[in-house]
Amino acid sequence: MRVKDEEKQAALFEATVKTVNAVGFVAASVSKIAKEAGVSPATLYIYYHNKEDLLVSTYIEIKKNFSRAILKDFDTTLPIRDILRNVWLAMSKYISNNTEYFRFVEQFTSSPYHSQVKREMVEKYFTPLLEVLQRGINEKIIKDVDFDILAAFIFYPVMALSNPRMCADFEMTPESIETAFNLAWDAIKL
Amino acid sequence: MRVKDEEKQAALFEATVKTVNAVGFVAASVSKIAKEAGVSPATLYIYYHNKEDLLVSTYIEIKKNFSRAILKDFDTTLPIRDILRNVWLAMSKYISNNTEYFRFVEQFTSSPYHSQVKREMVEKYFTPLLEVLQRGINEKIIKDVDFDILAAFIFYPVMALSNPRMCADFEMTPESIETAFNLAWDAIKL
Repeated sequence: MRVKDEEKQAALFEATVKTVNAVGFVAASVSKIAKEAGVSPATLYIYYHNKEDLLVSTYIEIKKNFSRAILKDFDTTLPIRDILRNVWLAMSKYISNNTEYFRFVEQFTSSPYHSQVKREMVEKYFTPLLEVLQRGINEKIIKDVDFDILAAFIFYPVMALSNPRMCADFEMTPESIETAFNLAWDAIKL
Repeated sequence: MRVKDEEKQAALFEATVKTVNAVGFVAASVSKIAKEAGVSPATLYIYYHNKEDLLVSTYIEIKKNFSRAILKDFDTTLPIRDILRNVWLAMSKYISNNTEYFRFVEQFTSSPYHSQVKREMVEKYFTPLLEVLQRGINEKIIKDVDFDILAAFIFYPVMALSNPRMCADFEMTPESIETAFNLAWDAIKL
């Protein structure tokens, strides 16, 4: 049995993102992705069963990296508003600096492969954030509404504003990010 | 000169959406789209200069149809909150019923063709809505912040919640849509 090589796996991850973004998820074949990564298709199959496995794994890896970045300085001893503000600032920074990963996510979620991803497979990486929201609800600081609704106001506006393809003319300054967070907080606070 | 035929144009519109969603914007060739629409490539070129023109026109048509649907019962004599609530409900209904059009929009905005679309080309269809927001700002009902920030709270959450690919487990009921609108209003109101 051949040993897995982290560098090769990282190259395959980047090649998957690059190829899918360039040619779309239908035309992005295993052989094209392997070539882009500088490995043989046989090597690719050491790491992934098939194209579906490769695309699904890449999507989950992006979500995992995103959760790590936004939860890096997660400090549950702070007031809930400050915790969420830190997450908001980290999201904005990460999305702006990694637009290609989010382009892949957009491509992937509109592909049939997305149906292979169970909610838990992604949600588990965001557990600390969900726990803070639940604490906010329990302490009557945050509105007691469906988590999907809270997420739609905490995640989507900052994702849209930080994504140059969605808001091309929006100037991301510390002030505008702060202003946008104030609106998000007004939306969810009780 | 051949006369343009509205039925053929409608067939090309639907075929463009269907083909791009099925195979991605790279593999969606003019000949594939013409075949799907049941017309010859020569006929397609009566209506569109090239693939870029076809994709850009389809995108703008979707935005135009969307604006018409959400501004159908637009009544500027109502209080601003009620105007925006009606727009929110209409958006939610239209997005739920036209998920394939929004899948095309997602594909298109992550394609290089999107850079061909000037902001004004789409924004003009939403002028009545922008005017109401401006009125709300002038009357000190709505926060005086960048339109992009207001839009991120009025458009994106309802787009995410109404899109089964983004919020698969969210149950769209009249109550949940109403709850979500309350959060949007809290976000933007002064």
